[in-house]
Amino acid sequence: METLMGDERLDYLLIDETMKIIQSPTVFSYSLDAVLLAQFAYMPINRGDILDLCTGNGAIPLLLSKRTKGTITGLEIQPRLAHMASRSVALNNMEDRIHIVEGDLKERHAAIKQSFYDVVTCNPPYFATPKDTEHNVNEHLTIARHEVLCTLEDVIKACKLYVKPGGKISIVHRPERLTDLITLFRQYKIEPKRMQLVYPKMGKPANTLLIEGVRDGKPGLTILSPLYIYEEDETYTEEARKIIYGK
Amino acid sequence: METLMGDERLDYLLIDETMKIIQSPTVFSYSLDAVLLAQFAYMPINRGDILDLCTGNGAIPLLLSKRTKGTITGLEIQPRLAHMASRSVALNNMEDRIHIVEGDLKERHAAIKQSFYDVVTCNPPYFATPKDTEHNVNEHLTIARHEVLCTLEDVIKACKLYVKPGGKISIVHRPERLTDLITLFRQYKIEPKRMQLVYPKMGKPANTLLIEGVRDGKPGLTILSPLYIYEEDETYTEEARKIIYGK
Repeated sequence: METLMGDERLDYLLIDETMKIIQSPTVFSYSLDAVLLAQFAYMPINRGDILDLCTGNGAIPLLLSKRTKGTITGLEIQPRLAHMASRSVALNNMEDRIHIVEGDLKERHAAIKQSFYDVVTCNPPYFATPKDTEHNVNEHLTIARHEVLCTLEDVIKACKLYVKPGGKISIVHRPERLTDLITLFRQYKIEPKRMQLVYPKMGKPANTLLIEGVRDGKPGLTILSPLYIYEEDETYTEEARKIIYGK
Repeated sequence: METLMGDERLDYLLIDETMKIIQSPTVFSYSLDAVLLAQFAYMPINRGDILDLCTGNGAIPLLLSKRTKGTITGLEIQPRLAHMASRSVALNNMEDRIHIVEGDLKERHAAIKQSFYDVVTCNPPYFATPKDTEHNVNEHLTIARHEVLCTLEDVIKACKLYVKPGGKISIVHRPERLTDLITLFRQYKIEPKRMQLVYPKMGKPANTLLIEGVRDGKPGLTILSPLYIYEEDETYTEEARKIIYGK
């Protein structure tokens, strides 16, 4: 199997240096937000079915495989990225536990059952409207970052469609969109239960939001202790280092 | 004027020891949440009209009078508390700038103009349903703490009714109710713009939520740096001390 294509490179998944992931500066590289979501989301330890929407190069399924023995499905709309993800899964010999499906979350897929998953995770495109310049420069990155092929409502609707009643939905997004997220959660009968704000450093506004809801859950939200990424001297905080490197 | 009634006592407003407030352990004493809201809310400095709903013994109008030269109206449904508030205003010679109105926020009042106020603040009752035991023990405290005489929706509806277009609404509440707050804000066309979580100490979940919205505002929320109240040794943090004592 031809492993690397074009400008792709093989990176270690930092949290586990026995695992590798295919990345590309021009196609897709996973971000800290994927790592944060993969540690925030509730995971059944011994069994269960997890679905990761907008899976990109498969970073979240690979990271989650360290936290659960369940089966993880990743859905990705861009063939180029789904192909990267599938090759990374194969490289790590994870084909029995991680399945990459290429497809649009707005459509039905034979491989993805409705009202079935224990947990649905998603690191969706963050930005409502791409600037024209960005749109033209790099289609892969534009689609991954902007709501070109799916809106936030499409994402939440798909989460609701695939998660089982009582199952959990975990999303990473920008704090600016909290109002939209909470309004859509309620609209699709997903009750926000757990939230964590991530701050670049002390004294700054939050720049990342982690939120988990339960399908048909009872009201009542817990806002966890905040997470700071950098110390004053720009080195990682101890908590951030633990999440990123596992130590 | 008979200043103190029953078990009432005269306390200093801690942030300004030239100001006093009438309190009572069995009727009403203001809480840290009132102080937090009074420092969080946007205030026009030199002029403007501010309305404080559920004003209790008038702590928030008195605290806000340190931050604005505008006119502050406090609305309180319980005659006993409104009377305490009026006497505190008189004691501080603030009758020209602070007006206490006794009345129900669900009804119209000649003294309170619609779509008029620059800022509406509210520290509403937090709890949806009082336990029977609590309900019987002390009616004044039950009404202040529980949604007996007004629901959260009544509060948000009144905020929307009285604030002018583009004016600000600042609320203090429990993080558990964030979902309800945000959903109601959107429903009444108040866009959440600024939020701060208050944590009792580092490593604990948030126990207080400060949120400010703008009537007919554009979407986009900023989540401010968190506020911690206590150090590990249970003394106030420097930021909490500044907010409570002004130094």
